[in-house]
Amino acid sequence: MEFQLKHNDSESNARAGVILTERGSVETPVFMPVGTQATVKTLSPHELEQIGAQIVLANTYHLYLRPGHEVIGELGGLHEFMNWKKPILTDSGGFQVFSLSDLRVVRKEGVVFRSHLDGSEHFISPELAIQIQGRLGSDVVMTLDQCVGYPADLPLAKRAVENTLDWAERSKAVWKEARSSNDSALFGIVQGSTYESLRRQCAKALVEMGFDGYAIGGLSVGEPRSATSEMTELSVRELPERKPRYLMGVGFPDDIIHAVAQGVDMFDCVMPTRNARNGTVFTSRGKLVVKNIEYAKDRRPLDEECDCYTCRNFSRAYLRHLFQAGELLGPRLATLHSLRFFFRMMAEMRSSIMESRFSQWRADFLRKYESGEGIGVH
Amino acid sequence: MEFQLKHNDSESNARAGVILTERGSVETPVFMPVGTQATVKTLSPHELEQIGAQIVLANTYHLYLRPGHEVIGELGGLHEFMNWKKPILTDSGGFQVFSLSDLRVVRKEGVVFRSHLDGSEHFISPELAIQIQGRLGSDVVMTLDQCVGYPADLPLAKRAVENTLDWAERSKAVWKEARSSNDSALFGIVQGSTYESLRRQCAKALVEMGFDGYAIGGLSVGEPRSATSEMTELSVRELPERKPRYLMGVGFPDDIIHAVAQGVDMFDCVMPTRNARNGTVFTSRGKLVVKNIEYAKDRRPLDEECDCYTCRNFSRAYLRHLFQAGELLGPRLATLHSLRFFFRMMAEMRSSIMESRFSQWRADFLRKYESGEGIGVH
Repeated sequence: MEFQLKHNDSESNARAGVILTERGSVETPVFMPVGTQATVKTLSPHELEQIGAQIVLANTYHLYLRPGHEVIGELGGLHEFMNWKKPILTDSGGFQVFSLSDLRVVRKEGVVFRSHLDGSEHFISPELAIQIQGRLGSDVVMTLDQCVGYPADLPLAKRAVENTLDWAERSKAVWKEARSSNDSALFGIVQGSTYESLRRQCAKALVEMGFDGYAIGGLSVGEPRSATSEMTELSVRELPERKPRYLMGVGFPDDIIHAVAQGVDMFDCVMPTRNARNGTVFTSRGKLVVKNIEYAKDRRPLDEECDCYTCRNFSRAYLRHLFQAGELLGPRLATLHSLRFFFRMMAEMRSSIMESRFSQWRADFLRKYESGEGIGVH
Repeated sequence: MEFQLKHNDSESNARAGVILTERGSVETPVFMPVGTQATVKTLSPHELEQIGAQIVLANTYHLYLRPGHEVIGELGGLHEFMNWKKPILTDSGGFQVFSLSDLRVVRKEGVVFRSHLDGSEHFISPELAIQIQGRLGSDVVMTLDQCVGYPADLPLAKRAVENTLDWAERSKAVWKEARSSNDSALFGIVQGSTYESLRRQCAKALVEMGFDGYAIGGLSVGEPRSATSEMTELSVRELPERKPRYLMGVGFPDDIIHAVAQGVDMFDCVMPTRNARNGTVFTSRGKLVVKNIEYAKDRRPLDEECDCYTCRNFSRAYLRHLFQAGELLGPRLATLHSLRFFFRMMAEMRSSIMESRFSQWRADFLRKYESGEGIGVH
């Protein structure tokens, strides 16, 4: 993996780059749709490609439990399994162990947890997390980290950083033999809750170890937005210019734009896809709740500026009907649209950075996005 | 609407034809996928076209209740609403009133029923059924009929035929003004339960009134297969050579082939799509239950002879995983495949009729279909 910086914004820390991998290049800033169980819910890989997905995130925790990394490995790896030819980033499973499973016992060696599917007990070590991701054939592998919720008291946050750093070191040590191709990359994860000194310390130590990229984890877990922003800011400051920076689990369009201005390159979030399945989509004029009665006879597409299959072919009235009637085509068409909206937003943002007009683009985008005009919000 | 007979099989009553409509032609024998609520569940209209759907069936009962024919009418009709440009056949609502709703009071004037959605009371007359279908913009309109279950005693079956004939006559009377285009067609429906004399009488009377096509209704409701076959046989015998014949609610591949040999031209059934959503798909080697453990590491496509997107891109192992994990892509990919299987079967059957080798094709198809070879059934 190689990361090339293409352009730095003069008025902010925003930057445009490109991640080169054996499976194709990824233009940054990039939004990675979440394909938890080896599928971005409701969409085919063909559609994902059509709407502009460059890289997909898959969840190691889920795939380890079902169908199992060994099964996927035997079947030729995750790309082959889900028929997605472009790059895949896998998380380490750390976040899910802490958010989804019961009975988490954190030891120096790793974490004992119970499956959210059947209650069975499992043990995951940093070494195993790397091996699993290697077996899946991931292009971007994440080290196992210890996540804490918000708020977390200082001793807990400190222990979590210590474990995260210890695990990062052990991950790196086993990385070379476990990786699936010579080109795949290993990212370290900055933890430290909302404690400035812990964040700095964690980031510094990771940079010293040396990774192909750096993630900022443990945010978007309930802390105030100002804290997210502050922690992102000071983490980024410790990270090397020449490596990609990935803010995990973010987020809403305005949060992404804000973080890009802070110098972040990569994002993932289940929110656009999850919201779409519940009938809330993102548009250039803000969020639109498809089920609302006001759309019952609305002939307009979800977003009049959108070029996706949904917007080119179906009215809000039809989408509303599909959701009212519980038809699966509803979540599907809504997901297609919302992801296309995110990808278009990222592409436009990148162009604006390349052309040194990011601040103007940002102001224009947000003015329209926050206006609610044309979506029936007055 | 015009129906042209292209070729009659010399060894059976099978025939190949074409139905010409303003919205395109339909080659018969044809299988019509069911789009109950203005969507063939899980699929986009673009996909339907790609896999070879020529005409779609929509349910008047469901659309009358939700979102309402007036809403669909205001939005430009059903084709515009669901973005399906090819022909649409709408049923009359009769079957659903009798199978889905509570409190059915059948009067000479029509039927009083309660909505299965909210219990509200509704009245549907033959005239209203025609008006609703006209408002939807249907290409092939069905007259309101009275369906009876199986078994039905003779007096009930007799009354149902009387009502069906009376309603057919009244439907025809209001038909000209209500129809949505000069080209749309009106079909009468043969009822009569499993009583030979009633079936004959009903068919004869309908033919005397004169319709653009004739449906055989009230079958596939629990009667033995021999009865379905017998009733189809004697109904067809009464129907004119030059008009299309439609066996409603049928069916499995072997049932369809059997009925084609009897001279039936049109079919519809929810079974391939419903089964697919539950993880049972049709293949050239018979039915395949995707969830079975034996497919957990099976790299083969659902059907090695199939050319659909699902079979070209995904393994049985992946499909099984999607169903195990409750992922919506599973039902979607399975539906796509099973419908493609039906459309290919119909197209191959038609070619065999055109080329005077229907009996051979039928024997070959069924031998393979019933072998279970290659789907793990031994």
